[in-house]
Amino acid sequence: MGEFDLIARYFTRPVRRAVLGVGDDCALLQPRAGMQLAVSSDMLVEGRHFFAGTNAYRLGHKALAVNLSDLAACGARPVAFTLALALPSVDEPWLQAFSSGLLALADAHGCELVGGDTTQGPLNICITVFGEVPAGQALLRSGARAGDDLYVSGQLGDARLALESLLGHLELPSAVLGPAQQRLEAPTPRVALGQALRGIASAALDVSDGLLGDLGHLLRASGVGACVDTSCTSALLAAQAQARLCGQPLKTELVRQCTLAGGDDYELLFTAAASQRPAVLAAAQASTTPITRIGTIEATTGLRLIDDQGQAITARYASFDHFA
Amino acid sequence: MGEFDLIARYFTRPVRRAVLGVGDDCALLQPRAGMQLAVSSDMLVEGRHFFAGTNAYRLGHKALAVNLSDLAACGARPVAFTLALALPSVDEPWLQAFSSGLLALADAHGCELVGGDTTQGPLNICITVFGEVPAGQALLRSGARAGDDLYVSGQLGDARLALESLLGHLELPSAVLGPAQQRLEAPTPRVALGQALRGIASAALDVSDGLLGDLGHLLRASGVGACVDTSCTSALLAAQAQARLCGQPLKTELVRQCTLAGGDDYELLFTAAASQRPAVLAAAQASTTPITRIGTIEATTGLRLIDDQGQAITARYASFDHFA
Repeated sequence: MGEFDLIARYFTRPVRRAVLGVGDDCALLQPRAGMQLAVSSDMLVEGRHFFAGTNAYRLGHKALAVNLSDLAACGARPVAFTLALALPSVDEPWLQAFSSGLLALADAHGCELVGGDTTQGPLNICITVFGEVPAGQALLRSGARAGDDLYVSGQLGDARLALESLLGHLELPSAVLGPAQQRLEAPTPRVALGQALRGIASAALDVSDGLLGDLGHLLRASGVGACVDTSCTSALLAAQAQARLCGQPLKTELVRQCTLAGGDDYELLFTAAASQRPAVLAAAQASTTPITRIGTIEATTGLRLIDDQGQAITARYASFDHFA
Repeated sequence: MGEFDLIARYFTRPVRRAVLGVGDDCALLQPRAGMQLAVSSDMLVEGRHFFAGTNAYRLGHKALAVNLSDLAACGARPVAFTLALALPSVDEPWLQAFSSGLLALADAHGCELVGGDTTQGPLNICITVFGEVPAGQALLRSGARAGDDLYVSGQLGDARLALESLLGHLELPSAVLGPAQQRLEAPTPRVALGQALRGIASAALDVSDGLLGDLGHLLRASGVGACVDTSCTSALLAAQAQARLCGQPLKTELVRQCTLAGGDDYELLFTAAASQRPAVLAAAQASTTPITRIGTIEATTGLRLIDDQGQAITARYASFDHFA
């Protein structure tokens, strides 16, 4: 099977909203009047972002999910994406599974595959996604103000817990590992929540490298500090309940490491004025997305962690850095 | 040097036209009223698209040039691009040279770097480029009609000639290899010509995999055939004059192979009604881009090659396929 047959079989479908899709030199998009185009690009490398042999359906899902998560963080509605794919060889069952996982998530969000590139090389998946957001309404990292509440969506740390187990750093009962591995390999982008928070959240970003590291980006962009209650964040590791049921409760320090500096969470971290609490709750309900208030924005720069007694935690939690 | 310092040092510059550039979850673009957005994505893999050790400045240039060539083929004006980069390690002199070559070409075309991704992995460069074109005016592959003239811009085949020499398949005097290698490593996207051809050309695409293969895409998309005069195309291999001066003239069959099925040319192949000849010449002059009429579009599907005597050439020339 050649390059063009491969594209035709697995990655070409009739366009519905784009002016022109796969098959010409460029795709053509027609942004709606008054809309800005939100653009994000993520590259997933085998052995770095996923293990060799990872389930191809989940990998297709995840490759798009991490990009949709960036759109969610801006409050943008997904519109279209391009896929550039380097493959060691043409493996049709792999391509079938990968494209099915990818396109199922794309369909769920009305996000069209409009173009891209395929080539031979070490497995590498690069997706660039396009969304639209009414001009001036994008959620940015820079809008947090002293006194704002700090929230995070969904759960935290399960992906990292699974990763540590898959790397052989710790042993988990399969009843614990299974759901956590699902979180690692098929995250849920918080697309509906992001759009629901437009006009309500003062700042937002998605948690991909770990809560504290990503919070640091938000705080620097906004010129503020924050206090985070780790008793709130620790409660967000979903695997804890199952681990207790299995008689193997997770240690406090492991829970903190995974929730505060785990990575691969793809939850939204956002701030909103205290006066917006009812609106924030309504946005969470409208998007059927759990949210948790985990702290407060402070005027003094820097990040303070407290425990359930309100005592300062001095341990440092490093975020993920691809070149550290 | 960590990931974020790397981005800040080499790939972050003040935005001029985009609403928001590098540093948030998404970049934000504000398309102008009445414009469609042309999008193209290309991935360059070390060992596949370029040799390990290729001059990094030229590689930065080429990575963007191949994408700008796709915009040119649509008649779109470059606006912005994202860069996703997998690097084996942080090599600062390499990054300095790569980003300089990349951004010099970007500046020359007013095309802003607005976002992307960096990660650790086998060297891989994925650029997605955005251009704008007035709604309905994009040049497509599908508009060629029987009787149209067939043109190609610039030169053909020098990149392939250099590649064959660098692969050790043939020996070239350095005075011949040097300029051809420049064509291979730092192609010139025909951006001005593409825009000048809006409303004049009936179909267009860029020659990246080889003239005949890419022409085949245009013919299939348009449902037509073509006759190509190889005496015209053979004359477009610039290295021939220097090779003759060096007393080592290139063989006819090598010239045909390189010009007809070379690859990496990044010239525009386009069609226009015969009545448009004065307008085509004016577009070429206005964009200071040489063009050559190389054949005619025919109603009967299929591709005919003729020599300088008008005799049919029956040899087959295979185009480049990443998985063939």
